[in-house]
Amino acid sequence: MYSTVVCLLSAWASLTAAQTSTYYSPGVPTAEPIAGDYTGVYRPRVHFSPPTNFTNDPNGMCPVVNGLVLLRHAYTRERMFKDANGTWHLYYQYNPTEPVAGNQHWGHATSQDLYHWENQKIAIWPPNNTTFVYSGSAVVDTNNTSGFFPNQTNGVVAIYTLAHQTTGAGVQNQNIAYSRDGGYTFVTYANNPVIDVHSNQFRDPKVIWHSATQKWAMVVSYATDFVIGIYTSPNLKDWTHASNFSHHGLLGLQYECPNLVEMPMLNSTSTMYLLQISINPGAPLGGSISQYFPGSFNGTHFAAVDGAARINDFGKDNYAGQFFYGIPGDENQVSLAWASNWQYTSLVPTGVTEGWRSQMSLPRRNYLANVTSIGYDLISTPYAIESIFAQELAYNSSLGNATLLLDYASTSGALYFSANITHLTPSTLQGTVNLTFTSSVSGEFISLGSPVNGDTWIDRSHTSGFENPYFNGKFSANGQFDSSTGTWSISGVIDRSILEVFVNGGRQSATNTFYSDSPLDTLRVGVAGVAGSAGVSVGVWALEDTWAQQADGNGTVVGNATMGSGGGYRF
Amino acid sequence: MYSTVVCLLSAWASLTAAQTSTYYSPGVPTAEPIAGDYTGVYRPRVHFSPPTNFTNDPNGMCPVVNGLVLLRHAYTRERMFKDANGTWHLYYQYNPTEPVAGNQHWGHATSQDLYHWENQKIAIWPPNNTTFVYSGSAVVDTNNTSGFFPNQTNGVVAIYTLAHQTTGAGVQNQNIAYSRDGGYTFVTYANNPVIDVHSNQFRDPKVIWHSATQKWAMVVSYATDFVIGIYTSPNLKDWTHASNFSHHGLLGLQYECPNLVEMPMLNSTSTMYLLQISINPGAPLGGSISQYFPGSFNGTHFAAVDGAARINDFGKDNYAGQFFYGIPGDENQVSLAWASNWQYTSLVPTGVTEGWRSQMSLPRRNYLANVTSIGYDLISTPYAIESIFAQELAYNSSLGNATLLLDYASTSGALYFSANITHLTPSTLQGTVNLTFTSSVSGEFISLGSPVNGDTWIDRSHTSGFENPYFNGKFSANGQFDSSTGTWSISGVIDRSILEVFVNGGRQSATNTFYSDSPLDTLRVGVAGVAGSAGVSVGVWALEDTWAQQADGNGTVVGNATMGSGGGYRF
Repeated sequence: MYSTVVCLLSAWASLTAAQTSTYYSPGVPTAEPIAGDYTGVYRPRVHFSPPTNFTNDPNGMCPVVNGLVLLRHAYTRERMFKDANGTWHLYYQYNPTEPVAGNQHWGHATSQDLYHWENQKIAIWPPNNTTFVYSGSAVVDTNNTSGFFPNQTNGVVAIYTLAHQTTGAGVQNQNIAYSRDGGYTFVTYANNPVIDVHSNQFRDPKVIWHSATQKWAMVVSYATDFVIGIYTSPNLKDWTHASNFSHHGLLGLQYECPNLVEMPMLNSTSTMYLLQISINPGAPLGGSISQYFPGSFNGTHFAAVDGAARINDFGKDNYAGQFFYGIPGDENQVSLAWASNWQYTSLVPTGVTEGWRSQMSLPRRNYLANVTSIGYDLISTPYAIESIFAQELAYNSSLGNATLLLDYASTSGALYFSANITHLTPSTLQGTVNLTFTSSVSGEFISLGSPVNGDTWIDRSHTSGFENPYFNGKFSANGQFDSSTGTWSISGVIDRSILEVFVNGGRQSATNTFYSDSPLDTLRVGVAGVAGSAGVSVGVWALEDTWAQQADGNGTVVGNATMGSGGGYRF
Repeated sequence: MYSTVVCLLSAWASLTAAQTSTYYSPGVPTAEPIAGDYTGVYRPRVHFSPPTNFTNDPNGMCPVVNGLVLLRHAYTRERMFKDANGTWHLYYQYNPTEPVAGNQHWGHATSQDLYHWENQKIAIWPPNNTTFVYSGSAVVDTNNTSGFFPNQTNGVVAIYTLAHQTTGAGVQNQNIAYSRDGGYTFVTYANNPVIDVHSNQFRDPKVIWHSATQKWAMVVSYATDFVIGIYTSPNLKDWTHASNFSHHGLLGLQYECPNLVEMPMLNSTSTMYLLQISINPGAPLGGSISQYFPGSFNGTHFAAVDGAARINDFGKDNYAGQFFYGIPGDENQVSLAWASNWQYTSLVPTGVTEGWRSQMSLPRRNYLANVTSIGYDLISTPYAIESIFAQELAYNSSLGNATLLLDYASTSGALYFSANITHLTPSTLQGTVNLTFTSSVSGEFISLGSPVNGDTWIDRSHTSGFENPYFNGKFSANGQFDSSTGTWSISGVIDRSILEVFVNGGRQSATNTFYSDSPLDTLRVGVAGVAGSAGVSVGVWALEDTWAQQADGNGTVVGNATMGSGGGYRF
């Protein structure tokens, strides 16, 4: 750790130092985004996927509002970012040269609504060809604590791990880079690394601003020690180890990608902190999973509210999720996760057939609820999904016990569906809702269903495009029906090769990829056994094709090729 | 809770009180065991399954040694019970009238070796037809603390939940019954219940003797509060609430079937306590699962060693496991679990085709290891499986990268298999072992495999006898290869409709039922990619048909019909 004197000196030095060296992979453009062909049958239409090759963890996620001091701005409780003032920045673990992990960079995309993503040029490159830029986070240094941003309130600092692979699994240490153009181009800090404990298992820093102590706080993983280290800093450059949080919840074989975030509590004016930890390998379903711990944070120490292990998602493709930086703690927090699993991510068919692998989950808005018995529960729902509705395919507010059959071959292939059973009483907790998405060509299907007040299940085992012993076919979870509401619900998005399901308004959620040889094009919704006194409403909407909207005449998504001159695609 | 004075009075009263009422289900024999047809194709040959109808949780497990004071007897570290002095008693949740849960009794079976089980008559009946006898435990009251056993050191006390269902989910309270004939017949205590907190979610007492405080200690579940209550008693009749252990690990929707047990630690002369908690529904794989917490216990309070949630078994059919009472804490502890899952246990095909449903897992011997990084790990292996080897089908101590093909149609259908890769070094961690059990008639198969030092997988999705959205097909876990040993291993037992797998000497274990339309009869073991410097040994043994050995000329297993006159089947 550095002393305060060193801190001030290094702050000054950083303003004058030359950029450290950068290694550019042969053939990868440096001044513009990589162009992508998003026409493949597996390409999601409303999920982010990289233009080519491979992505894994989302990184450095932060909204940058032009010229505004984010933390002091008065927001509505639900921030929509529908106007031109706000841009969401998604950086992501990116290998631009192969459709598997390795040669890691920080890719970059931006969005006004978290669904239409504009590809940007690569944001952070490695210093040489034996170093990988691993995961990390980004903050908006509105008060110029770093000294990098005189006369500027939208300076962005990225905090990330460099993995030095010169001789196998070498040292992993924490580094920073700063952007004076709102997050598009970065200059590496001259006195990197900012934290180095000479470990080869030390990574994934996530930084927040802790207002009460007026300091930055970092959570970072000592991966195979099952320790989340908490560090503090006044300036993002000089870090002091404050405490450890260790051996909580599911361990697997590694802790990765910690997140610490303040978020609101349903029916309360209080906020809580949530520490999220991803583990891989060793998830109960195999491979990768994320878990969370509600608790309190005083700027130096995190204390979990209890000893429970709470899992984010009951599917198999939701890992390394990150919460966007800088959303005030009393607003719903917004997150994205990597929608794949290390057990099979390098083998899924998209790499061979379409030249890309892996995508991000839907953006989710998140808050905590204090529920009976279980205590604290993370509630996650798709972020403002209505904003990308293209067409109502069906809506029936009184379907009853009936079946709805839809041909959606002429849509984008991305649908949002929602079914609600209302006016339930303790004596009418009966009935089932089942949804089946089928290919009219091959008969392949993916299905889900649930008894009211029972375990919701998802079955992806009847698609033929990918066979792997780790590619589990079936998933289930109890939706934790809350009898006080009288309503049971299921909703979700199917998007060509990914299905996300939300039960009871986000009490449970699941993310699963799937690969059918023929596109699915027919939806059957069946409701049966529901009491006559209960209400049944079902709706299905086609979603926009956010990538086709960006494609040029050749079907290519170029991305923001004119960044810096104020151009770029606008929605 | 009772005062000491009440305790002494009630102890006296119990010796003189008449037995409380008992309800005998019509048609169920009361003086002899229920006869069973164990010839069905799904009937396991070396696992316990009930003679007819339905079992779930194992209960009251205790070894009773004729006339010996168990806790003071000097045992070898591995207790084999191969001679005539020791009998293992397994009680079990039993519905003798239907192949689904309901009408719960305590069934009973005994064994000299934990594989050959002799059915006994039902041990505990409900007091009336609106009360169920739920799970619990049994102890040997060698010192006659209860006063039930003057001049006797092998008196058995069963401690169990009565669920009063008169009006729906009624009160659940804790009751005791005592046996003066070594655990075969029980008299209910006159002053039951011994604990009643007027809750309808309070069950599954498990009692141990705590030597240091010279008291009995009970763990019992406040199921939907996610609380394990700890009670103490001097005499098994009068209980004092001592502490609670709550909201640890995975919660699901209920805590059930807690166990507290002292067990040895590998490479240490110290023992530790382990608190095991089962949850259902809400396991990560759906439905039912068990987890454990290593820690310390002072007679009144349990403290977990850390905040980690550790899962017993990476399959889907291992729940409500119980540790046998009375094995000294410095010996390997012996357990059995219910080998099914509440999500589908009432639907598996054996109920319709063979008149029974559910079975127990293999008996396992268990100890803790303090392993790098992860900390404490429960190591579980089959208990003395060699004792039931019937025939060596194959053994090759230097198989190398080759395939072994076996027709086992002429065996019992129960096999033990073991594969070891030895002399591994950091540079030779390569190669895979795969095993496939196939039906030569239908082509159905169940398979498992693993890379050395990678995730072990099991796939039961290619059997056709049972289709259910909750019947997951695929499972995997990381076997936590310990490089210091230089050996990676996989072993297991397949037994007609159940497969149990053990990785790296029990670092990971999995229990999965499966249902093929045609019996599996062909085993292929394939080893590939192993370095030339490593050793490969593979062995396969047919196991005894423990049930056919007991069948009479009509193929019926009568069980111990002459208990009380000293008779009964002897192995």
